Amino acid sequence: MAGPLAGIRVLDMTSVVVGPICTRTLADQGADVIKVEAPGGDLLRQLGGTGRNPGMSGKFLNFNRNKRAVCLDLRDKQAQAALRDLAGTIDVFVSNIRPSSLARMGLDVPALCALHPRLIGCQILGFGFGGPYNERPVYDTVIQAAGGVSATFERSTGEPRYVPMVMADHITGLVAAQSIGFALFRRASTGRGEIIEVPMLENIASFVLSEHMGSMTFDPPTGPSGDARLLSPLGQPLKTKDGWISLSANTDPQAFAFFEAIGRPELRGDPRFCSVAARTKNTPDYFALRHAALLEKTSAEWLAIFREKDVPAGPYNTLEGLLEDEHLKAVNFIESVEHPTEGRIRRTRIANSFSGGMRDEHLPAPRLGEHTRDVLREAGCDDAAITAMLERGAAVQA
Amino acid sequence: MAGPLAGIRVLDMTSVVVGPICTRTLADQGADVIKVEAPGGDLLRQLGGTGRNPGMSGKFLNFNRNKRAVCLDLRDKQAQAALRDLAGTIDVFVSNIRPSSLARMGLDVPALCALHPRLIGCQILGFGFGGPYNERPVYDTVIQAAGGVSATFERSTGEPRYVPMVMADHITGLVAAQSIGFALFRRASTGRGEIIEVPMLENIASFVLSEHMGSMTFDPPTGPSGDARLLSPLGQPLKTKDGWISLSANTDPQAFAFFEAIGRPELRGDPRFCSVAARTKNTPDYFALRHAALLEKTSAEWLAIFREKDVPAGPYNTLEGLLEDEHLKAVNFIESVEHPTEGRIRRTRIANSFSGGMRDEHLPAPRLGEHTRDVLREAGCDDAAITAMLERGAAVQA
Repeated sequence: MAGPLAGIRVLDMTSVVVGPICTRTLADQGADVIKVEAPGGDLLRQLGGTGRNPGMSGKFLNFNRNKRAVCLDLRDKQAQAALRDLAGTIDVFVSNIRPSSLARMGLDVPALCALHPRLIGCQILGFGFGGPYNERPVYDTVIQAAGGVSATFERSTGEPRYVPMVMADHITGLVAAQSIGFALFRRASTGRGEIIEVPMLENIASFVLSEHMGSMTFDPPTGPSGDARLLSPLGQPLKTKDGWISLSANTDPQAFAFFEAIGRPELRGDPRFCSVAARTKNTPDYFALRHAALLEKTSAEWLAIFREKDVPAGPYNTLEGLLEDEHLKAVNFIESVEHPTEGRIRRTRIANSFSGGMRDEHLPAPRLGEHTRDVLREAGCDDAAITAMLERGAAVQA
Repeated sequence: MAGPLAGIRVLDMTSVVVGPICTRTLADQGADVIKVEAPGGDLLRQLGGTGRNPGMSGKFLNFNRNKRAVCLDLRDKQAQAALRDLAGTIDVFVSNIRPSSLARMGLDVPALCALHPRLIGCQILGFGFGGPYNERPVYDTVIQAAGGVSATFERSTGEPRYVPMVMADHITGLVAAQSIGFALFRRASTGRGEIIEVPMLENIASFVLSEHMGSMTFDPPTGPSGDARLLSPLGQPLKTKDGWISLSANTDPQAFAFFEAIGRPELRGDPRFCSVAARTKNTPDYFALRHAALLEKTSAEWLAIFREKDVPAGPYNTLEGLLEDEHLKAVNFIESVEHPTEGRIRRTRIANSFSGGMRDEHLPAPRLGEHTRDVLREAGCDDAAITAMLERGAAVQA
């Protein structure tokens, strides 16, 4: 069995999260991903908290499984040349390095794609070409604030916040992998590669505005911006006698079943709550009703009641609770595997299944430069040249 | 010019957000997407707030552009048969209807894929097969709470919340489109379709745990769960004299430039802040320092200073501000177009660019059943049969 991307080779010049989640997705689906790092290593090796050995944090392991790693100092001309040779052997090049920095190394995406017409070159950018922010440095937080994510919290709670995840990085990286898949599909019929530009701000603005442009979709606007349901101050799990649960009752049958469950069947006749349109218009009242209704029974009691009535509801899981969730346990979502240098680790299973076959050989996340010699040989470098690079520090082998 | 998915036909039996964003992505990239709705219409027609006409909310328009719409009452046997005929003319079938409900209509993914070996059938699920939650009804909030998203807010602010977007729906839908791209690529060489299962909980658990499994990645854990930087109570934009900005200074050069910018160059020698590892370990102090440092100058003053020093920083945009952002304006991110029935509307440009060609003919989001007759003809139904279905309400033409 093999994943849908088996046979595809990817040269991965990315770091932190936005690029590594893109290439991890390609790797999980069967691609041979070669991660290139400078001698200092991907910043995520340090940023991701402590592990058992330096540079091998839990977060780094999670975002870099199924990859091989080569370590090159790209200030060295011979290292640059080796990388250009390698680019001739691959299908996909992904980078989140600023285009001007890539160009200084002779490794910019347009140049590589011009040399290799079948190559798909994916340039992940903070901001797209043609706008004033284009070459500015960026992290996830910059995009969450500029892209309107933080503003959704100010609207709902009065205070701007970040989602406590690198959401802008993570989503943009998943979209980059998606875009590469589409380009691979096109290449299968045209035989030609292409250049894909994936700018973070534009992707997150698209994400946020699809949900929250709302009445501003119309010109002139038909009402205030934003989806009032999602921006409600009460947009949170519901308190029960002993904890929290989720509950959403959007259709009429779901709402009416909910009214029955809380012993208020007459509410189906209440003009504020009798239809989807009425409940949407009266979101504050409807949400307040839901919050007040659940305090007298435990989470388990409520979940049993709602399950019986087919009302969408579910448990509230902490991060530790997620590892013990009964559904995730039943589907073996958390696998326990032995990492060759880091010992026993937990890894999440690939979330989606493909009946045509899945990757079945799993590679542990690599140490810095673990595959430098192997990869440089594959690029056609001879052993003497590799040794010379290793000796002067232009390449590092773990 | 045409998008990478030009020539691909998609039968879209999805509603609300998780499925519609999947199929909108395919449509934006050039696929011919046929949206199937029951006579009541996609719930999002009502849920998305008010527009100029009933059933045509801003949110519905945003998630359903570039699609055609057919309206069928699938309790009718002839309507079911028409849909099965249509399935023989398409490349991709996507549904977020519960599998047992699809099976009752004779439209379950395994049955359709068995009939049509080139068909790619994508089943979006709340919860994967093989676990106890599998057939339970679900909305985004159920997944945010069960998947650990809400818990990240409890960890950072003391109170569980939802992200004020349908984030679990939206991300899972983008991943479904990604998975379909990979399967289309595989089909191009094997000639065979396949079944893809995309469960929401597993996808969001994977998203959250990749970021927050942290020290729990190791068994036994090497420390507490979660990424302490992301879970900081101070995980929010920074207050200036007149508003908010974002700022992240993660590498040494960025941090040292930041210390200079705030007139505290000596902090580069402070053992709490002198390296990535030191700043990560002392996140609370480092974040507190950043929050306290910016109150004396305006946002514009700080952004000019940080830009000059190449420190990642950026503006804080409200939802209205996003439409006026100078970068997004310069790249023409918001287009003003005329919708044939809804008047002048704003639409976001496709965020990513493909040098091999993009979709250039844009379809307005469809009214309920706008293309019923056209699509049924394409499925091989004769006009008399279509008229009979329309007359008895088994089909609706706008």
